[in-house]
Amino acid sequence: MQEKSLTHFTQQGEAQMVEVGAKPVTLRRALAGGAIRMAPATLARIRAGDMHKGDVLAVARIAAIQASKRTAELIPLAHPLFLTGVEIRFALDADSSEVRCEAEARCQGQTGVEMEALTAVSVALLTIYDMCKAIDRGMTLTGICLLRKEGGKSGVWERKPGAGQ
Amino acid sequence: MQEKSLTHFTQQGEAQMVEVGAKPVTLRRALAGGAIRMAPATLARIRAGDMHKGDVLAVARIAAIQASKRTAELIPLAHPLFLTGVEIRFALDADSSEVRCEAEARCQGQTGVEMEALTAVSVALLTIYDMCKAIDRGMTLTGICLLRKEGGKSGVWERKPGAGQ
Amino acid sequence: MQEKSLTHFTQQGEAQMVEVGAKPVTLRRALAGGAIRMAPATLARIRAGDMHKGDVLAVARIAAIQASKRTAELIPLAHPLFLTGVEIRFALDADSSEVRCEAEARCQGQTGVEMEALTAVSVALLTIYDMCKAIDRGMTLTGICLLRKEGGKSGVWERKPGAGQ
Amino acid sequence: MQEKSLTHFTQQGEAQMVEVGAKPVTLRRALAGGAIRMAPATLARIRAGDMHKGDVLAVARIAAIQASKRTAELIPLAHPLFLTGVEIRFALDADSSEVRCEAEARCQGQTGVEMEALTAVSVALLTIYDMCKAIDRGMTLTGICLLRKEGGKSGVWERKPGAGQ
Amino acid sequence: MQEKSLTHFTQQGEAQMVEVGAKPVTLRRALAGGAIRMAPATLARIRAGDMHKGDVLAVARIAAIQASKRTAELIPLAHPLFLTGVEIRFALDADSSEVRCEAEARCQGQTGVEMEALTAVSVALLTIYDMCKAIDRGMTLTGICLLRKEGGKSGVWERKPGAGQ
Amino acid sequence: MQEKSLTHFTQQGEAQMVEVGAKPVTLRRALAGGAIRMAPATLARIRAGDMHKGDVLAVARIAAIQASKRTAELIPLAHPLFLTGVEIRFALDADSSEVRCEAEARCQGQTGVEMEALTAVSVALLTIYDMCKAIDRGMTLTGICLLRKEGGKSGVWERKPGAGQ
Repeated sequence: MQEKSLTHFTQQGEAQMVEVGAKPVTLRRALAGGAIRMAPATLARIRAGDMHKGDVLAVARIAAIQASKRTAELIPLAHPLFLTGVEIRFALDADSSEVRCEAEARCQGQTGVEMEALTAVSVALLTIYDMCKAIDRGMTLTGICLLRKEGGKSGVWERKPGAGQ
Repeated sequence: MQEKSLTHFTQQGEAQMVEVGAKPVTLRRALAGGAIRMAPATLARIRAGDMHKGDVLAVARIAAIQASKRTAELIPLAHPLFLTGVEIRFALDADSSEVRCEAEARCQGQTGVEMEALTAVSVALLTIYDMCKAIDRGMTLTGICLLRKEGGKSGVWERKPGAGQ
Repeated sequence: MQEKSLTHFTQQGEAQMVEVGAKPVTLRRALAGGAIRMAPATLARIRAGDMHKGDVLAVARIAAIQASKRTAELIPLAHPLFLTGVEIRFALDADSSEVRCEAEARCQGQTGVEMEALTAVSVALLTIYDMCKAIDRGMTLTGICLLRKEGGKSGVWERKPGAGQ
Repeated sequence: MQEKSLTHFTQQGEAQMVEVGAKPVTLRRALAGGAIRMAPATLARIRAGDMHKGDVLAVARIAAIQASKRTAELIPLAHPLFLTGVEIRFALDADSSEVRCEAEARCQGQTGVEMEALTAVSVALLTIYDMCKAIDRGMTLTGICLLRKEGGKSGVWERKPGAGQ
Repeated sequence: MQEKSLTHFTQQGEAQMVEVGAKPVTLRRALAGGAIRMAPATLARIRAGDMHKGDVLAVARIAAIQASKRTAELIPLAHPLFLTGVEIRFALDADSSEVRCEAEARCQGQTGVEMEALTAVSVALLTIYDMCKAIDRGMTLTGICLLRKEGGKSGVWERKPGAGQ
Repeated sequence: MQEKSLTHFTQQGEAQMVEVGAKPVTLRRALAGGAIRMAPATLARIRAGDMHKGDVLAVARIAAIQASKRTAELIPLAHPLFLTGVEIRFALDADSSEVRCEAEARCQGQTGVEMEALTAVSVALLTIYDMCKAIDRGMTLTGICLLRKEGGKSGVWERKPGAGQ
């Protein structure tokens, strides 16, 4: 791994948006995950909203989808691309007292969509923080990582179970 | 804690941007932190860039400052506000093999700047991921949380050491 | 009315962002309304979603709030301003087979917030169109107008009942 | 119509950006229309500006073109796409005392451009409102709808004369 | 001059958004200028449009005003601020075969509006380039500089005649 | 040259986003250049930062890359497009006491990328101005022009040496 260079820099060490024009257009797909840990009472509140009204997760889902479309504005060296689909899933885990989020992003293009999926997860969790911060300032975003990617020269990559967290 | 309501919803459970016009204008300050865990070789690469050229952290710092200014576009119910200052600090920790990031945001206003600080940290870490992902897809963002806040009716809040992570 | 000039143009007829720096800062409030007319079956579908899941109006509400914050980007000569609060209300009217939307925007500033309220209503209705267009392309946005405004030199203005539509 | 589902939601009722990657790339074209009704004196003022200087419609046209490019930022579940062309036309109708606007948007893609055309019309009319509101607060946006679309699996769709308004 | 430090960096040489919260709010005003040099035939074409229809300068003026509102998004360390007014003026100079542009920006705030005025001029000239490039690729933007500023601790600053170009 | 029309206007003189859907997709490449002239002491300061820390040019490079991705938002009639690569180069010239910037933008598309390259250069130079303005208000942006373009029907265009400046 040591020998690979960071392609986002020229040989002179200057940041660049790497040329991808010669890469083939393939179906790209990336799945990212993450969680926000909170007080049990906060989790209960979110669960209640999900059932009836005051649905924190519905707002976070929209924020995540919108953020994924603006990834190239947020991440300086990311390429603009056309997402063909985005899906956001939440799961509430009472044992660890956290909301888990997974985002899947897809496009047909010359670069991967990992950053789109990771940005979606991050903004989903930040939005949950925003909506619940009045009752629980200590919430923590954790374990935001790539779970799986497909497409491009490197093909399928899958996170090894238990790795990295 | 149970009885407090989520102010981002009306009594009918509908999302709203809460009215803050009656709150006094005070100096607001928020400090947020977080980290990205990575392979030791990746950390070494970032450290090398920081010394010479190919400076991943310098790019991440700019991304973070720019993102903090756009927080209200990303977080649906956040209020627009005028940041008067933003600072981003990084520290490389070889023991845990991670880059730690802290962001401090400040304004004089009617709402807090927690989301601005948390957004800055998140985008800083995402930018590091983007620039290093070609050599290390398994990196994980972790422990993104509020460390301290000042200003407003609730005054100073400080994270208890060791809490939440 | 004839003699009043359009202040958005200089005497040479050139568009400008009118100077408002000498105006006093007052509480500004604007209420705008509008509707989208549709097939009765489409209205029934929206009503069903509102009850259970698949909530078109919840998505439209978030879109409206976010758009209100970006009004000055969309409307060329509008002044940037800090909204202190935004509320979006929907009502389903089976008789006229339409969804009605009202948006209230508030700020403390030197210019009114009519455009913010009107932009919120328009984007709410456009979002409903987007989500239902696969089943009803003939929907029509109608009656988007200012209902009431407060603040500034001109004080309270209220739409006369039945006017303009 | 009853049986068709709203594709913007998953079977669990969660909002998503629908996957369109499998759809063929075809020429897409959408024509939308709408109007802003106003006092006769306001219409006369706009007509005068169109002749000489102080051209309200020229400003509204630019606002509309720019807004059409940002549709996917405003409408949460809309797909980003590359417009290949946009045209905005205005007509002044003294009988009904309104400015009519039509917008045509075109692209080669996997999704339609109806939302781009409808957004362009809406922002054109909102911009006219903004520029004339100092002399006529009672103006009303009305009859914003799709007039025609081409491309994609469903082929040509045309609004029936007199429908919906 | 040598001894003054660049305030946009911390003592460790890290970029920051400088804290301005302690500065007094004063009326800020900045006037910037610049020009685009072109073939005489291109200038003639622009002049013709200004007279009749096809008005390049009207489009450039709107682009400039809109860009001035987004300065803090473009310039990484610039502070967000509320412009209270913006004016764009053009002059055609047949002798030097160029269009000159001046932009005046104003706000009441804690930081200057030089960047807003300079950004407005630059985007005005870029827009002229865009609209005329099909007939004259060799056009050159030149002499974009601050002409005058007012407000803040440093008071009035005026460019010495003939300086710098 | 006289006879060519400005394609950004319809025959009625109304601004439009020109239809490019019938043009072939080719590799597009544009190189633009420009400079910012400053006091020798300012140039020395930038050179010092480039060596150690406080790197003005690194910040300007990121600003330029990010701005190039948003060209279609800034330039009203520019088409949205997918940049496949962007590179920004700086050179310090002690003789003329200026920083020169060159930007190369590339895409595969139906329209050229001249505006993306020119926007990148302009925002790079504006960012340098912003970071150094506290020590040198008199800096001037100069000679911003297209140096070379490739792709599309008109093929290669190269600026004649010494032209236009």
